[in-house]
Amino acid sequence: MPPHDDVDWRTDPAVLDAHRFDRSGWTPDVRPAVVASVRGVAGVQHVLRFAHQTAIPVVARGAGTGLAGAATAADGGIVLDLTGLNRIVEVTAPDELAIVEPGVLTADLDREAHRHGLRYAPDPASVEISTIGGNIATNAGGLRCAKYGVTRDAVLGLDVVLADGRLIHTGRRAIKGVAGYDLTSLFVGSEGTLGVIVGAALRLRPIPAATATICAHLPGAASAFAAVGAVRAAGVVPAIAEFIDAATLTRIDEHLGTDLRARGAAFLLMQTDGAAAEAEADQAARELRRYATDLEVTTDPVEGARLTAVRRAALPALERVGRVLIEDISVPRSRLPAAVEAVRAAATATGTSIHTFAHAADGNLHPIIVLSEGQEPSDPAVQEAADSIFRAALDLGGTVSGEHGVGVLKRRWMRAELGEDVGALQRQIKGVFDPKGILNPGKAI
Amino acid sequence: MPPHDDVDWRTDPAVLDAHRFDRSGWTPDVRPAVVASVRGVAGVQHVLRFAHQTAIPVVARGAGTGLAGAATAADGGIVLDLTGLNRIVEVTAPDELAIVEPGVLTADLDREAHRHGLRYAPDPASVEISTIGGNIATNAGGLRCAKYGVTRDAVLGLDVVLADGRLIHTGRRAIKGVAGYDLTSLFVGSEGTLGVIVGAALRLRPIPAATATICAHLPGAASAFAAVGAVRAAGVVPAIAEFIDAATLTRIDEHLGTDLRARGAAFLLMQTDGAAAEAEADQAARELRRYATDLEVTTDPVEGARLTAVRRAALPALERVGRVLIEDISVPRSRLPAAVEAVRAAATATGTSIHTFAHAADGNLHPIIVLSEGQEPSDPAVQEAADSIFRAALDLGGTVSGEHGVGVLKRRWMRAELGEDVGALQRQIKGVFDPKGILNPGKAI
Repeated sequence: MPPHDDVDWRTDPAVLDAHRFDRSGWTPDVRPAVVASVRGVAGVQHVLRFAHQTAIPVVARGAGTGLAGAATAADGGIVLDLTGLNRIVEVTAPDELAIVEPGVLTADLDREAHRHGLRYAPDPASVEISTIGGNIATNAGGLRCAKYGVTRDAVLGLDVVLADGRLIHTGRRAIKGVAGYDLTSLFVGSEGTLGVIVGAALRLRPIPAATATICAHLPGAASAFAAVGAVRAAGVVPAIAEFIDAATLTRIDEHLGTDLRARGAAFLLMQTDGAAAEAEADQAARELRRYATDLEVTTDPVEGARLTAVRRAALPALERVGRVLIEDISVPRSRLPAAVEAVRAAATATGTSIHTFAHAADGNLHPIIVLSEGQEPSDPAVQEAADSIFRAALDLGGTVSGEHGVGVLKRRWMRAELGEDVGALQRQIKGVFDPKGILNPGKAI
Repeated sequence: MPPHDDVDWRTDPAVLDAHRFDRSGWTPDVRPAVVASVRGVAGVQHVLRFAHQTAIPVVARGAGTGLAGAATAADGGIVLDLTGLNRIVEVTAPDELAIVEPGVLTADLDREAHRHGLRYAPDPASVEISTIGGNIATNAGGLRCAKYGVTRDAVLGLDVVLADGRLIHTGRRAIKGVAGYDLTSLFVGSEGTLGVIVGAALRLRPIPAATATICAHLPGAASAFAAVGAVRAAGVVPAIAEFIDAATLTRIDEHLGTDLRARGAAFLLMQTDGAAAEAEADQAARELRRYATDLEVTTDPVEGARLTAVRRAALPALERVGRVLIEDISVPRSRLPAAVEAVRAAATATGTSIHTFAHAADGNLHPIIVLSEGQEPSDPAVQEAADSIFRAALDLGGTVSGEHGVGVLKRRWMRAELGEDVGALQRQIKGVFDPKGILNPGKAI
């Protein structure tokens, strides 16, 4: 490998092994040839120029917390480790703007923004362990996107190293702009297949004046989703609206020692924020009480954190029971009851154990398949359950991935969603940016 | 021209003339060969198949209210008139979703949404005369994007007829989704150069519980922008924050018989909305009073409409004085004072008459060059003034078009903004969608 001041070429087997897989639970049988840990943009350009000349595949990688296998290694390829590019270059409060490198942890950016009276709104559950570059590459969602939108909505511009090592800039520091095709949005969610993001201009937002938290226990999924609909119909825009089903509540009870399941077969966590947080929470609570068996409202931050901890415990509670496959479908909000019903039917028909929580305001469901002892993801029953879930998402006018991305794991179903003509366009766009096909081959499209 | 049940081929000279130009003030010397008025998607496909076979240019057109020359005719080409595709196909309130054809007037969609307790948030000044298809094709902004975002933020999915007549679907009915590259965002703002939008899934939003309007008179631009910054720094997110300069106020006074200019050299119109509208307006007013010479706050809708009428009168007031060239730069908000100063310097240096109003929360300025009697847009002084304005926008980290698009009029400056590498990528993307270059040639990129 050609040496460069900004690149550490690493071939230690332990390093190679540690950079093979992400958090999807899927590990490729293959190993990369080398991990290139870079310290600067010039290092990224150097690695890509070399890869382009030699036609060696490059997998760009941040913290490796992806859930769809997008950052898993290519056989004999280069893993481009961007965690060394981790500076928050600038926060300009009057412009509500941050300039960051891709290896910054998302929560660190949010904390730095807080020092300027601002916040970074997108908050994937992985916010403490995932990098902003990975968030952009997957167009990560999160809890607060119910009100503040997904990662794409926070990205104003990008610095991108192309497959051949050239550095380009898309978008701008300004909030609005329509000059040229929207390449920024094209790179957001492209999972490292079109270029390597080495810098981003991000939109920050004011810290809300107040936050109110509501916790409601309801008889079941149907009443929970009806209650969320009633809240929206009343004109309340919750910042967070999370649903947890009965099966997951049982696991959380086992994990935390709580009695959530006994209080209702469905659980809703809502937050309102801003100057009207309390008034909106009261209004939401009025609607929720028509459906709920039990309800708490608080504007106390400590109490609010205690209530949101229930939602954050959902995945760890399931991981204690067994290996998990995390699905991520999204449907129009009115179709949530049908989606949950389809998930339940898939579980029954295949004898698999599926637990569901959801970003209810967005229609984004996470059915979690918990594997039984010794069961593999490739088990036919598990595959059939997953297939049923994806089919239901498409039948209901939704998508096979709401916020986690396609990676290697959702490709077959993405093709079904997009159809042949759109699939062909996607591959031609890929060809424009990466004519030799070296950027994360076999992923995303 | 090959006949089709869904196509009227029109060659009447008066019809051809009426479809040559948009509202940019620029009229091409050329005439189209034919106007194809279509009644259905099959008609659009028929026209494009014919154009693709014969390599005849096609300019898709709604109401022709664009301000950058994007919908002006191509010599001997087809103007594809989409105003007949004007159905609001569906409004599904629980999903806050509308399905529309491109020829629907944007205000008509908003009115239909209101019947379902919702609204369509993007509100370009042309909302009563422009079509949703044109809004999407230019990624139109408006007043309310200070809080609710631009057209792109409201588009969930599109039906698009490709250059060769194939119909594709992008995006989805669901709010979230990350399967595949974001083709929806690529078509938004592409000004008819990548495909013809024949349908859209649009996100609606709840009607705010209340709206408050604030009108402030200030000593000048610097204090006005400082005041807007102070309001944002206080955590208030105004739905509207409009700035009008002294020169424009004088013209509005002449037009409406008001005494705005005498009350201050700068004018701010703000609206807050939602459950906390009044509290936020009071908070904004507290900040504004530190800068303002005079201030009014109202929650009365009639009084609010009277105050917003001042802003809506700005362009008509200028058009009474002479022919106008409407510029549309956008800069980071903190650079607004510098941008206004650059515009003033350009006016002085070139002896041109420039009036400025701005969407102040977004950093989006409209410097309006009012031509003197007999002066043409091609006048060197006018060109030099425009060049100075564009150069300032780029020097300040901004863009040469915030919300009106590139069309034919901003192409030279867009190239300066994007640079060669990005420009080449844009042309290659164009080549993927339109290999024969028949879709709105010479526009946008």
